[in-house]
Amino acid sequence: MVENGHNPYGAGQPADDGAGRTSVGIIGLGLIGGSLALALGRTAGFRVVGLDRKRRVIDAALADGALAAAALLPDLPELPGCPGILADPDSPGFPQPTPDEEAAWRLLADCAVVFVCTPPSTVPAYVKMAARYCPGILTDVASVKGPIMESVKLGRFIGGHPMAGSEQAGYVHASDKLLENAIYVVCLPADHSLTDEQISFFEQLVRLCGAVPFRMGAAEHDKAVALVSHLPHVAAAGLALLASLADTGTPASLAAGGFRDLTRIASSDPGLWAGISLENAGELLPAIDRYIELLGRFRADLARGNCPALQDFFSRAAEYRGSLPPGGQKRRDGERSDQP
Amino acid sequence: MVENGHNPYGAGQPADDGAGRTSVGIIGLGLIGGSLALALGRTAGFRVVGLDRKRRVIDAALADGALAAAALLPDLPELPGCPGILADPDSPGFPQPTPDEEAAWRLLADCAVVFVCTPPSTVPAYVKMAARYCPGILTDVASVKGPIMESVKLGRFIGGHPMAGSEQAGYVHASDKLLENAIYVVCLPADHSLTDEQISFFEQLVRLCGAVPFRMGAAEHDKAVALVSHLPHVAAAGLALLASLADTGTPASLAAGGFRDLTRIASSDPGLWAGISLENAGELLPAIDRYIELLGRFRADLARGNCPALQDFFSRAAEYRGSLPPGGQKRRDGERSDQP
Repeated sequence: MVENGHNPYGAGQPADDGAGRTSVGIIGLGLIGGSLALALGRTAGFRVVGLDRKRRVIDAALADGALAAAALLPDLPELPGCPGILADPDSPGFPQPTPDEEAAWRLLADCAVVFVCTPPSTVPAYVKMAARYCPGILTDVASVKGPIMESVKLGRFIGGHPMAGSEQAGYVHASDKLLENAIYVVCLPADHSLTDEQISFFEQLVRLCGAVPFRMGAAEHDKAVALVSHLPHVAAAGLALLASLADTGTPASLAAGGFRDLTRIASSDPGLWAGISLENAGELLPAIDRYIELLGRFRADLARGNCPALQDFFSRAAEYRGSLPPGGQKRRDGERSDQP
Repeated sequence: MVENGHNPYGAGQPADDGAGRTSVGIIGLGLIGGSLALALGRTAGFRVVGLDRKRRVIDAALADGALAAAALLPDLPELPGCPGILADPDSPGFPQPTPDEEAAWRLLADCAVVFVCTPPSTVPAYVKMAARYCPGILTDVASVKGPIMESVKLGRFIGGHPMAGSEQAGYVHASDKLLENAIYVVCLPADHSLTDEQISFFEQLVRLCGAVPFRMGAAEHDKAVALVSHLPHVAAAGLALLASLADTGTPASLAAGGFRDLTRIASSDPGLWAGISLENAGELLPAIDRYIELLGRFRADLARGNCPALQDFFSRAAEYRGSLPPGGQKRRDGERSDQP
C-alpha cells in the first residue's frame, strides 16, 4: 500500500477527504484505467485510489500525480482448468483475502465510484470483490455489456464503455485526453438501486474526462459493437493474417497507407481480443455469418462479371461511410484508434 | 485544343521544346494523372501536355501551371452492350477520329512518354490510340497489370502502378506531393523493345515525382495487390455495408476511430473499384475464397470457445502488422489513403 506524499489519505477516510475532494477508485491502470486516473486525479482534482498488479505502473501513476493512494491489486483465483477465467467470489470455497490483500481492498472503502478497468472476463469477479468493500457505485469499461451485467447482478453497478482507445496498450500510453469527445456508453441495470443523484454524478465524471455519456441497453450495445468494433477487428486481423501467409516479401513492400490504416487495429493485444470475442460471441457469431454471406454474394457477382451489382456494393458502402459523423478525436498514423 | 499563354508550344513540336524541355503526355487528369502533371510539369519543369474529358479540369491544370498544352480527350466508342468497356481501336469498323480529335491526339506526337491515367478497363484502348500518334514510351498507372499488358501487347509499353492515392478522387485533390515516398511498380513486357536509356529515363521521371521505382512481374504484382489492396477494399466496403444494413442509428454513433480508419477506403469511387475488381478477378476471386475460409475457421474456433486458437489468430495478425515497413507518407484523418 502506498500513500502519495503530498496527498496523504489512506484507507478508512470518508469519500470527502476533508479537503473537499471526493474519492474515486480505479482497478487496473492500463490504457483506459490509467487515462481515467489522469483525467480524474490529475486534471479534475478528485482523490483517486488505484489498484494494479504491477508495482512499476503504480509507481508511475503516483509519480504522475494521477493517484493519491495505491496498492497492488490482489490476484483472484482462476477457475480450475480455465486459465484467464476467474472464479466467482460468491462461489463456495473462494479463499479469504490475506491481511495485505484485505488492506488493499479497504482502500476502496470510501470511494463514491469504483471503475473496474480489467479485461472483460475478469470484470465480474473484481466488481464483486470491490462491492464487498465499497458501498458506492461500481462500474466497468469493458467492450461487452450484456454478459457482464448478467454475471455481476448488482443494483448499484453501471455498465460503461468508452468508445475510444488505441492499439497501444498499457499505462505508458494513457493520457488525460484519451476520452476527449468519445462516446461513453452508459448501461443501467433494469432493476438498479441508484438514486438520480448517483447517476448524475457518474455521468458528470464521464463529462469531466471529456467524454459524452450515451445511455443505451446492454443488448443493443453488444449488437452494435459487434458490427462496428468486434467484427471489424476480426476482419482486419484476417486481412493481415492472409497477407502474411502469402508474403514472400512482395505484399509487404506494396502495402500502401490503406492497408496499414485498415490493419492498424490488428496490432492490438491478442489476449484481450480473444477474450472480447468470446464474451460477445452471442453477437459476434451471427455478425461473422452475415459478413461471410455478404462477401460470398460479392464473390458470386464478381465471378459472373455482374458489374452493376459490384458497383451497387461499393456505392452503398461509400454512402454509409460518408454518412458517419466525423471523428471527434483528430488522429495521426500510429496514434489513437479503436478500443476493445 | 488549348495552349498555355506563357508556354506556347503546340502539337508538332519536337520532344525538346527548344527551351531544353522534354515533353511528357498525360491522358486523364484525375487524382493520379493530375498529380503527375503537377509534379512533372510544375515542379520538375517538363513540358506536360494533357488530355482530359472535362474542360474545367483542363482549365484548372493550365491555370495551375501543370500543363503547357491541352485538349479535350476524344471519347472512344464502347463495345455494344458493354457500357464502360471500350472497343479495341485495332478492331474492324473502329471509327476514324474527327479532325478535332485528330488534332488532340497529335498533341502527343513529340512526347518522350505518355502516361495513360484513365480507369483500368479503358487503358488498353487509350494506349493503343496514343501509340498511333506518339513514337515514345507508353505507360499506365492502373492497379492491375497482367490483363492490361496482355491486351496492350506493345514492346514500348511500361506497366506502372504508383502505390499511393486517396479515397478522394479527381484533379481537385491532386498534389505534386501525392507520390512522395510511394513505391511505384514498374512492369516491363517480357519482349520489350525499349533501350536501357528509355527505361532509365522513365524511372528517373518516377523519382522526380518523389516515388521509388520497384520492378516486378505483372503476375506477381497482381497477386500481391489482390491481397494488400483489392481484397482489403472489398472487406472494408463489406464492413460498412453490413453496419449500414443493421443501422437504426446506434452503430453509427458508436463508430469510433477504428471503424472510421478501417472503412475509410470504402469511400472511394464505386465505379472505379467495380472495374478494378473485374480486371483483377483472376487473383481477387481466390483471395476472397481464402479470406472466407479463414473467417470461417475463426468462427468455428469461436463457436467452440477455443481460446488458444483465437489468441493465435490475433497474435499472428499483430505480428505481421508490426513487421510492415512504416508508411512513407505521414497522413491525417481524411487525407491520403490507399490507391486502386
